[in-house]
Amino acid sequence: MSDTWSAFEARMNELSDLGGVMGLLGWDEQTMCPPGGRGARANHGATIATIAHQRVVDPAYGEAIEAAGALPDLTASQQAMVREARRSRDKATKLPESFVRAMAEQRSATNQAWEHARGTKSFADYQPALEKLMRLKVEEADHLKGDGTRYDALLDDFEPGMRLERLQPLLESLRDRLVPFAQRVLDAPQPDTSVLSQGFATADQYAFSLRVLSDLGFDFEHGRQDLSTHPFTGGTAPSDVRLTTRVWEDWLPACLYATVHECGHGMYEQGHAPELWRTSVCGAPSLGLHESQSRFYENVIGRSLPFWEHYLPVAREFMPGKLDAVDAEEMVRAVCAVGRTPIRVESDEVTYNLHILLRFELEVELIEERVAVADLPEAWNARMEQYIGYTPKDDLEGVMQDVHWSEGLFGYFPTYTLGNLYSAAIRDAMAQDLSIDDHVRAGEFAPILGWLRDKVHAVGAVPLGEQLMIDVTGKPLQIDSFMNYLETKYSALYGL
Amino acid sequence: MSDTWSAFEARMNELSDLGGVMGLLGWDEQTMCPPGGRGARANHGATIATIAHQRVVDPAYGEAIEAAGALPDLTASQQAMVREARRSRDKATKLPESFVRAMAEQRSATNQAWEHARGTKSFADYQPALEKLMRLKVEEADHLKGDGTRYDALLDDFEPGMRLERLQPLLESLRDRLVPFAQRVLDAPQPDTSVLSQGFATADQYAFSLRVLSDLGFDFEHGRQDLSTHPFTGGTAPSDVRLTTRVWEDWLPACLYATVHECGHGMYEQGHAPELWRTSVCGAPSLGLHESQSRFYENVIGRSLPFWEHYLPVAREFMPGKLDAVDAEEMVRAVCAVGRTPIRVESDEVTYNLHILLRFELEVELIEERVAVADLPEAWNARMEQYIGYTPKDDLEGVMQDVHWSEGLFGYFPTYTLGNLYSAAIRDAMAQDLSIDDHVRAGEFAPILGWLRDKVHAVGAVPLGEQLMIDVTGKPLQIDSFMNYLETKYSALYGL
Repeated sequence: MSDTWSAFEARMNELSDLGGVMGLLGWDEQTMCPPGGRGARANHGATIATIAHQRVVDPAYGEAIEAAGALPDLTASQQAMVREARRSRDKATKLPESFVRAMAEQRSATNQAWEHARGTKSFADYQPALEKLMRLKVEEADHLKGDGTRYDALLDDFEPGMRLERLQPLLESLRDRLVPFAQRVLDAPQPDTSVLSQGFATADQYAFSLRVLSDLGFDFEHGRQDLSTHPFTGGTAPSDVRLTTRVWEDWLPACLYATVHECGHGMYEQGHAPELWRTSVCGAPSLGLHESQSRFYENVIGRSLPFWEHYLPVAREFMPGKLDAVDAEEMVRAVCAVGRTPIRVESDEVTYNLHILLRFELEVELIEERVAVADLPEAWNARMEQYIGYTPKDDLEGVMQDVHWSEGLFGYFPTYTLGNLYSAAIRDAMAQDLSIDDHVRAGEFAPILGWLRDKVHAVGAVPLGEQLMIDVTGKPLQIDSFMNYLETKYSALYGL
Repeated sequence: MSDTWSAFEARMNELSDLGGVMGLLGWDEQTMCPPGGRGARANHGATIATIAHQRVVDPAYGEAIEAAGALPDLTASQQAMVREARRSRDKATKLPESFVRAMAEQRSATNQAWEHARGTKSFADYQPALEKLMRLKVEEADHLKGDGTRYDALLDDFEPGMRLERLQPLLESLRDRLVPFAQRVLDAPQPDTSVLSQGFATADQYAFSLRVLSDLGFDFEHGRQDLSTHPFTGGTAPSDVRLTTRVWEDWLPACLYATVHECGHGMYEQGHAPELWRTSVCGAPSLGLHESQSRFYENVIGRSLPFWEHYLPVAREFMPGKLDAVDAEEMVRAVCAVGRTPIRVESDEVTYNLHILLRFELEVELIEERVAVADLPEAWNARMEQYIGYTPKDDLEGVMQDVHWSEGLFGYFPTYTLGNLYSAAIRDAMAQDLSIDDHVRAGEFAPILGWLRDKVHAVGAVPLGEQLMIDVTGKPLQIDSFMNYLETKYSALYGL
């Protein structure tokens, strides 16, 4: 047994290390790499990715997986390692090499067309490339779908185990309850947010963000924070997790909430149990679960009254003279302001999921060939009016605002909303064990992190996403936790 | 032809990319990696090194090299690519895998013993591990030496093409001329260096170093500078070169000359001709040649009167009030102060090579088994007295001061002195085309860099080290350029 398992383990370790190296390359590209070094970086990334792919599709790896899987008395973790290794290898071997190359080329071409069309503000300049990409996505889904639907095949890259037949009713019920509530919030008098735009020095904001990061429990012995244009969580291993944030001098929440959001992702990565390191289950079960941790910290904790009761005095120390005239209730109303914004990434906690629902519905229709690429702008704008009450003034405010589709990322958007649903369900479960508000108000974040470590972070991808939800909350994923949270919080904030 | 060459080229490119990735891992470890990430980093480095080694020893690579080498009408560059690929592959395949593993383990054990013995100040705690390592180095040299000597085999890792029968007489003649001259300088009245220890703010020194780096011609579009404990030049490619420096608040030269030194290395890397990128000849022909560039900038340019005539006013701007009472002549005397220091890395331009000669002579005797490890401290101290007139007060000041031997680096030390000899020979050749002093005094560094780019940097490792010297200076390497430079400069500085 030992030798068979060791052979499988050595291959997992090698793949994990190659993943770690790619993590470093990606982090470095966004943070440290001199501008002229990008070309070399692309070569390095392609070489490591090629080697990793060769290792995955190597028939000997397939044999090592099957031999390990046939061993008696495997632990649950070991069974999951075999399951995840098999799943990703099956996926890699199902796609013909010529298809992978064609997809990579078309993705790059579509991305360029998207960038170009954003300059010309013309969907017509983007449409042909997106059509070609869509045809390849359909082909990809047909290669991969097995006995599921095409959309299932795409989802599986990001939310393993999730199926359209489960996801669609869930998101429809969310839509039916969220749209009218959002309408009420949007129609209510809006708070004054001018306090957030006073001009806050970059160094002060960054220092404050480091303080919050440290308080929340991010481990700087095993991680760091830097600046990048688009905040992200990367790094090379649970012992080396790297967040980035950004600073906008005229918008205080930009830096703070990017930091708090990435902190949720980063602490998840730091929290995987050491016995899972360098294996195929050292990671979240799904992107939605990963997002649940960032949303939990960003919204449930960070956009709460107790948070500002604790942090307003601290923020005043870091940004002297700027926040004296505001109280915690005004701060939380300002950072929770809701609006009819066309741009998802600038939207708020209430309307955010409407942006996602719109994209999810269009994605399903695209992959099922029920809507044509040519009709996307119109379909987009109609839904935007219906859900958010806003008419995009051009396609930059509409269908061309997101980079995801041009990158070939279909099936990815729903994980954002799943993240919100998971985070609220986790909050409800946590509230049975802890008084979250009291801890936050006292600046005691260790019990919260400890709870998440134990129930979520440490278990890695041993359970599948929804199984983890059942383990943690005692029931399958549902929308009630989230909608109750949202309705309670925003009814209070808006005096509804 | 094209396919045969392409197959070889693809393998060179892949190995170059793996080297670039290892460069990033190494740079990151010294600069950015959180302390707790070192363990993961060691796994990543070992995995990439193992893959690179597998690719090098792959018989198919050997066939690709030979097929490419047999092509008609290869250019000189292409012939050199084949030569270098073959040389490094032959070396990798000559060492049995069991030997490579034993060496790696013993290197690690010896390094630990060295660190431990530095704590206990006891050579006896270090001796057994160094003896084991020496036996392995003898075995390694016997595997590799072919028709050369053991020392030739070790030298070849760092100074390809150099042989002991060429190097030994050269260094002996250097010793015979340098020892008496150094004695005269050491016996002369020493300059006042207190101006350099006034306490200079870290930020001011660092900003000044960036200014100098930029002036000298380091390209920040394709490189960067950071801080690390031990300054080094790394990075991933000629388009992504990364220097580090350090700052000692109480010793102004520490930061400045580390920066200027690494700048010489860095501009060499940035200067390789693009047609050599990602090939086996994209690098210096030897470590000595690499060192020639750092020494040229550090000593020939940076420790000259014209340099301080130009930079003293600039330094006063960066460090206000500190340097008003000193003039350029006093500055250059201070930064060129010579002394009977036991520690090589703190020594000066005159005695530095005596430290190297001492180590070179002991290395040769060790590998030829003419001196026993047990007798090293005594042999070291005797030579230190003879060459520099200093008696080490313990082995930390003596044989245990350098990490190199414990790392298994034998044959490496002479490249430091070769670097000095090359740099002076290059200076003489450059002086026939340019008035170096006038350019430096005017702060015009572009003509100097342009000359080096053209004659040295761009050609990469197409010629071997000494052939490059012949191409650049019209004659083989000799000691006269260096000794004339040293005697003229230090006779003037010391009024001899």
